[in-house]
Amino acid sequence: MAGVIRILGIDPGSGATGWGLIETIGPKLAFVAAGIVRPKRALGRPERLAAIHEALAGLIAEWAPDEAAVEETFVNASPRDALVLGEARGVALLAPALAGICVAEYAANTIKKSVVGKGHAEKSQVAAMVRVLLPASGEQAADAADALAVAICHAHHRSAAALTRKIA
Amino acid sequence: MAGVIRILGIDPGSGATGWGLIETIGPKLAFVAAGIVRPKRALGRPERLAAIHEALAGLIAEWAPDEAAVEETFVNASPRDALVLGEARGVALLAPALAGICVAEYAANTIKKSVVGKGHAEKSQVAAMVRVLLPASGEQAADAADALAVAICHAHHRSAAALTRKIA
Repeated sequence: MAGVIRILGIDPGSGATGWGLIETIGPKLAFVAAGIVRPKRALGRPERLAAIHEALAGLIAEWAPDEAAVEETFVNASPRDALVLGEARGVALLAPALAGICVAEYAANTIKKSVVGKGHAEKSQVAAMVRVLLPASGEQAADAADALAVAICHAHHRSAAALTRKIA
Repeated sequence: MAGVIRILGIDPGSGATGWGLIETIGPKLAFVAAGIVRPKRALGRPERLAAIHEALAGLIAEWAPDEAAVEETFVNASPRDALVLGEARGVALLAPALAGICVAEYAANTIKKSVVGKGHAEKSQVAAMVRVLLPASGEQAADAADALAVAICHAHHRSAAALTRKIA
């Protein structure tokens, strides 16, 4: 459909990587799909990264998103934890980039502000607002709801940017 | 040739990622190739990661290494720097894992100890010992010499591990 933009939101984590697909038609948002990639704990780190990559690459091939957005991982962590988070994040940024899809990045506070209206919202408030904004999404696990929130944030920012371009 | 193991060493970095290929036949080491992947600075971060991935995946397809080894990136950095290093590291671990190649990881001190004999060797000492151990490698840029050092370290550790298995 003309004017429909499909957005893939990704919330990368060292244990679980959430993903959420939405469509935006002008100011309207619609839920498409969401889920969590959770590689087996028994795998080594390189194999866990390969599992995340293969899942994301498969999703991109299946759902053909037009744009992608990734949450900026929490950096108030120890350098070692930040390094491990960075590894998952690198893989999350890579999959859409390899498919030639533009990847936007948003800080956690920007996402919360965009979805709940305040930058220091609780995780449960984010999930509740995701259900309000995307009723068809139903009850999603936290990481999938977070990924849908990233996608919603990108939808808001991209239409604001388009409006700015129109006014300018 | 029977008994020849080809090892790909990778030294991931946010700016440049060094790589080095060696072959080990029992205790003997031989230089195969080395280089640096340096994505254009003008690219966005996701596109830089894609450039690193494509270069490493291309090297793996071309040279068919049997095993890979990656340097554990410096984690005495700020959480933000560690996160960015982690992104490059995730991509470096991913490429061999996707090709089904085992990836070993070694701390910088372990690599220095293995190549120079002491854990706190200078970068120039590492490069000098790489030239001694792999005369055919000639003069290599620092990141490529570091990657060759990772590969040498893995060659030493894998033969020590094989010896342990034989004795046990």
